[in-house]
Amino acid sequence: MRLINTALHFLLLLLILGCNALGLKPQLLGRHTVQTNSQHTSVSYKTFYFDQQIDHFGFLENGTFKQKYLLNDQHWHKEGGPILFYTGNEGDITWFCNNTGFMWDVAEELGALLVFAEHRYYGESMPFGEESYSNAKYLNYLTSEQALADFAVLIKALKKTLPGAQKSSVIAIGGSYGGMLAAWLRMKYPSAVVGALAASAPIWQFIVPCGEFYKVVTNDFTISGTNCSSNIRRSWAAIDRVSATGEGLQWLSQEFGLCNPLKTRDDVDGFKAWLQETWVNLAMVDYPYEANFLQPLPAWPVKVVCKNLHFNTSASDKQLLNGISQAVRVYYNYTGDAVCLNTSQTATGNLGLLGWFYQSCTEMVMPMCTDGVADMFEPQPWNFQAFSDECYSQFGVRPREDWAEIVYGGRNISAHSNIIFSNGNLDPWMSGGVTRSLSESLVAIMIDGGAHHLDLRYNSEFDPASVIKTRVLEVHYFKQWIKQAATTK
Amino acid sequence: MRLINTALHFLLLLLILGCNALGLKPQLLGRHTVQTNSQHTSVSYKTFYFDQQIDHFGFLENGTFKQKYLLNDQHWHKEGGPILFYTGNEGDITWFCNNTGFMWDVAEELGALLVFAEHRYYGESMPFGEESYSNAKYLNYLTSEQALADFAVLIKALKKTLPGAQKSSVIAIGGSYGGMLAAWLRMKYPSAVVGALAASAPIWQFIVPCGEFYKVVTNDFTISGTNCSSNIRRSWAAIDRVSATGEGLQWLSQEFGLCNPLKTRDDVDGFKAWLQETWVNLAMVDYPYEANFLQPLPAWPVKVVCKNLHFNTSASDKQLLNGISQAVRVYYNYTGDAVCLNTSQTATGNLGLLGWFYQSCTEMVMPMCTDGVADMFEPQPWNFQAFSDECYSQFGVRPREDWAEIVYGGRNISAHSNIIFSNGNLDPWMSGGVTRSLSESLVAIMIDGGAHHLDLRYNSEFDPASVIKTRVLEVHYFKQWIKQAATTK
Repeated sequence: MRLINTALHFLLLLLILGCNALGLKPQLLGRHTVQTNSQHTSVSYKTFYFDQQIDHFGFLENGTFKQKYLLNDQHWHKEGGPILFYTGNEGDITWFCNNTGFMWDVAEELGALLVFAEHRYYGESMPFGEESYSNAKYLNYLTSEQALADFAVLIKALKKTLPGAQKSSVIAIGGSYGGMLAAWLRMKYPSAVVGALAASAPIWQFIVPCGEFYKVVTNDFTISGTNCSSNIRRSWAAIDRVSATGEGLQWLSQEFGLCNPLKTRDDVDGFKAWLQETWVNLAMVDYPYEANFLQPLPAWPVKVVCKNLHFNTSASDKQLLNGISQAVRVYYNYTGDAVCLNTSQTATGNLGLLGWFYQSCTEMVMPMCTDGVADMFEPQPWNFQAFSDECYSQFGVRPREDWAEIVYGGRNISAHSNIIFSNGNLDPWMSGGVTRSLSESLVAIMIDGGAHHLDLRYNSEFDPASVIKTRVLEVHYFKQWIKQAATTK
Repeated sequence: MRLINTALHFLLLLLILGCNALGLKPQLLGRHTVQTNSQHTSVSYKTFYFDQQIDHFGFLENGTFKQKYLLNDQHWHKEGGPILFYTGNEGDITWFCNNTGFMWDVAEELGALLVFAEHRYYGESMPFGEESYSNAKYLNYLTSEQALADFAVLIKALKKTLPGAQKSSVIAIGGSYGGMLAAWLRMKYPSAVVGALAASAPIWQFIVPCGEFYKVVTNDFTISGTNCSSNIRRSWAAIDRVSATGEGLQWLSQEFGLCNPLKTRDDVDGFKAWLQETWVNLAMVDYPYEANFLQPLPAWPVKVVCKNLHFNTSASDKQLLNGISQAVRVYYNYTGDAVCLNTSQTATGNLGLLGWFYQSCTEMVMPMCTDGVADMFEPQPWNFQAFSDECYSQFGVRPREDWAEIVYGGRNISAHSNIIFSNGNLDPWMSGGVTRSLSESLVAIMIDGGAHHLDLRYNSEFDPASVIKTRVLEVHYFKQWIKQAATTK
């Protein structure tokens, strides 16, 4: 089984591994979501770079780096209009800026200034330039705490220097890991932001049972077509049986149109991991309309996938795998342009990958496991020690299993306020999300029929009523926080 | 003018400086308060050492150190009795344990477990053993953020491992810098503690006008005797005039019974700084009863001091300075045992001094200034650049002027809850304290006639009604927080 993602060659070089615990760590990321819808090409912003301390929590390293941020003030009502502040996650900030249509859609109504702040060690915001990923010493400042401090410092500076911003309430907005950061920014720096929208933010993924994530993935396939998840569950053994012979390997390679034919047992493990990751990605981006991803996808892609997987148990291995091969083509070849399928790619190439892997190997420890019963995957237990050893061999650091829970409060977060936790019931990451309101001002919103932070996307004529209602509610809370802040000033 | 304190020779070696900005930085510390009252010798505790990460905010340095903590469970009602957790400040934790009588006095009523946790880099809790202070690299982990993380991690471990503690609510208690840490622990880790008592905690000393502190000192002397502060204000010029001749220097040295006679202009500057620090210390420990400090002091020592300083303006320089010399003897020679006065000592010797100086030189930047008009001291402006340069020459680090305000929220802390800020109106540190309630659960208590965290001291028959009432109110809030936590569990 392979690693988190193998889209990038340098990662592959670093991380060539056999079957291992990391193979079960899916990618969190907003990174998997969409490019700007073509009808929304009007996104425009100015780009700035802010001098940030490399180390906020120590004084020996006193160097600074350029943190990139984007700004749009076309709708801003100065002297009081709010600032919507996107807490950048693990990727190029322009990508998040282009893919967070919600902020652009509500800017006018709120008279808001839009700011998109890049997360250190991603995009252009490299603390040590091109050397930033070269060794453990340079990587040492890649933590969520440092990123939050960056955001708090930047907000302070913006409010101080932007004419009119002093009176502006700031609202943090983010999706996925960016949503976790938005929530944590409100929790740790409530003086910086009056509230936060944490969309599809699995802040409890550190502490939920390790099997929850893959159960949600499985459920998406179960509800999207007859026998769909059970056929995927059966496919693993079918692959093993077929690939037991040289002829079978050849057949599999041809059937899936693989760019690189399968030759060894390791190749087959890699092939299975690629399939597993494909199913996870499909669940994450199971949006109600056509969208242009790394590859274009149809509306409700999981349903389209499942149309190829309705066999009953009488199907032969090769029949079943033929269905699987048709199913994965929905993800990799919806347009029909693909010459062959490349098992080293599952999603948009993004520098963020290695950074997220480092973060997983330090504080973002999210246990994942499968049992093949409650989910449709091959059984694989969570093995912290193996994970830790692997992190050590890759980065020279070991993860701290309990730290995220301690620093971010685990389930005991009711002392905080003004955070919206939105989750889609189709999104595997809802397994680690806050799905029930904890107080009047820690509000959970479940989006029926929603995949990974659907609410942060542009309005669409195909939006289900649930997400339309969600966005209205979110703006309602924004206004409430702004009003509340104005009265306490 | 000299430095913060010159009690320790190694500090002197490091920090020999002329007149400079640091000269105006008084010591925050509980360190200046009292030893255990002799009637309370029953304090007993078990000593433990907990393995803490040296660096909570980075993963390259994965070493641990032994954090010392003290524990007393004689009154603890297991299965629900609270944990009173002293957030240790800049000194040996046994000293704070022995000097926080309040916790011992209320333990039985609350059925509480008492824990006193030492602050890293103080007492025995040295991250790099005897080398901890040897260079900037080893000192790099001496920050309040690291200390708070230590407390949060320790609390988590105690609740996990102490039978019965899982259900216990934890309340943070601290005085002075320890009080700041108690408040910040609740603000940053509300999942760890249900509330905090921040006694005489100047959490706003970073942002209040630089002259406030010395104004309070001056006021104490003004209200404690006719002409008292104005005579101290006049004394500086009198010292200058008298010390202008060799005969005058000799007279001054004899008059004050100095162990080391004054010889140079620098000696005179040092002498004046020593006097200034003495007045500050007296204001801090202006308690209503006799107490055994570094030197024993009478009840209301500032009043006793002022009895020697009631001259009108017709007094000659030598008459005035004779009064000053009588006055300082109240502080340095109440018992009459002192053979001579040592201008290199003003308070209890304590390893914490160098550590606090480092902390002042990094994040704990508390601007201090005097103008000789609103206060009784020689004018000295606050000069951040000079201060920064000095820090750099001493430690190789520079302070970050705005960081404390950003990380701890400045005046905008109303989103937090369950913190008591108690202050005494005689305590100079109240100038940076929260002296008005910010919400129903961010409660300020002013103690009329109170000096530096009087409320944390043992009950005494000489306690003014104000402090008795304060302690009752504090326990009332403790019970409320515990009840509140029980209902939200």
